[in-house]
Amino acid sequence: MDITSRKNERVAHFKKLAASSGYRRERGEYLCDSPKLLDEAVKHGAEIREVMYTDGIRGDLPEGVRAYCVTREVMEAVSPMRTPQGVVFTVAMGDSAPCRDMAGALIIENLQDPGNVGTILRTANAFGVPAVLLVGDCADIYNPKAVRASMGAVFRQKVAALSYEDLAAMAERTPLYGAALREDAVDIRSADLTSAAVAIGNEGSGLSDRLLSLCRGTVIIPMRRECESLNAAAAAAVVMWEMSGRGL
Amino acid sequence: MDITSRKNERVAHFKKLAASSGYRRERGEYLCDSPKLLDEAVKHGAEIREVMYTDGIRGDLPEGVRAYCVTREVMEAVSPMRTPQGVVFTVAMGDSAPCRDMAGALIIENLQDPGNVGTILRTANAFGVPAVLLVGDCADIYNPKAVRASMGAVFRQKVAALSYEDLAAMAERTPLYGAALREDAVDIRSADLTSAAVAIGNEGSGLSDRLLSLCRGTVIIPMRRECESLNAAAAAAVVMWEMSGRGL
Repeated sequence: MDITSRKNERVAHFKKLAASSGYRRERGEYLCDSPKLLDEAVKHGAEIREVMYTDGIRGDLPEGVRAYCVTREVMEAVSPMRTPQGVVFTVAMGDSAPCRDMAGALIIENLQDPGNVGTILRTANAFGVPAVLLVGDCADIYNPKAVRASMGAVFRQKVAALSYEDLAAMAERTPLYGAALREDAVDIRSADLTSAAVAIGNEGSGLSDRLLSLCRGTVIIPMRRECESLNAAAAAAVVMWEMSGRGL
Repeated sequence: MDITSRKNERVAHFKKLAASSGYRRERGEYLCDSPKLLDEAVKHGAEIREVMYTDGIRGDLPEGVRAYCVTREVMEAVSPMRTPQGVVFTVAMGDSAPCRDMAGALIIENLQDPGNVGTILRTANAFGVPAVLLVGDCADIYNPKAVRASMGAVFRQKVAALSYEDLAAMAERTPLYGAALREDAVDIRSADLTSAAVAIGNEGSGLSDRLLSLCRGTVIIPMRRECESLNAAAAAAVVMWEMSGRGL
């Protein structure tokens, strides 16, 4: 047993990575849980740094990874899951090369729910969407809930944060559409989304006026009148399905 | 102030409705939270029974509804939300008339996550899917998380639990397709889903062999090879979008 105390400094580090997005940025790494995610991280060559486990690890870890066998109590203290799965580990954040082209990208603005953000990464990756671009105040993609919901897409999917200024500059070259319930919205089935970018807004209030002012037009997913909207991740799934020509 | 004690028997009743699906069935009612859901319940004529509120209620309640003004402490004890929204209320479960026709229905089997189940109800309702049918061991649609994720669709959407025997009987009349990653699966874009039913399985393990044995065939949402699957609610959104002829 390598770590038996919940007061161990590696334990404190792991817990802080789970809790604080500021600390994650400062350290340039984030926390992942579950053996399934560890498999994905290894498979996709993510830069794994440290692993804590209770009963062992399936498969081999890359060289140079520090692995600690910990007690169940330590695992419970460190895992962000209600029922810990026996493995937690840290991964270095990927390079965030500046985004210069948003053709085919999904833009999300002010999306608050980390589960929605993670699910959107997962769907984007499955449908081959070239990039997911975060504008405004979105949930951190490295929040443990987002990482878990992404099911490993966080290791693979191109993601970048974007200022409104950058978005405005790119919107001059690439047509940007907003998903919004407006009078002038075009049915998404008849919109030409080839090489366009589409933006999805906040769960409650939709896209901001600022973002809408940058859009060439708005698109709508037709639905029954008594329903105002879809869940953001469900709407994003339909939007990306249509953007990618209804699948690959 | 009508209720100031967390030990009040109406408080105990509300808490038990939030916590226990067995108690919900026994009493034939369930708990909803948030003013937004109350608006939806009133608008759609759901049978509201009792309301607890802290600061007041927007709009009028139907006649015969008992409303209690409660302290903030009581609201915190009673609300299943981390940040209570000031209103919780109970609603009678709708009639569960036996389901005799599954044409156009979405079947969900062993779906464990109440958020996914609620989101699927919301999407089904938005896309005009005639029924959502629950098979096997699904999360309770009256779980507070499912109710919240449904955004009021729980008041409007036709939902029924179905035994494998009933499903087998209906599958003789209505073509049933399973969403599954099998060799012989047909691309969902080229499948004729008119008047068919489509089944979506458990988040981790997909559809059971028992359910697959009742299917006329399987359909697949094409995706990149490195991705094994979509989130169940995202997959359901794409499936229902295609089933409803890509929208209404």
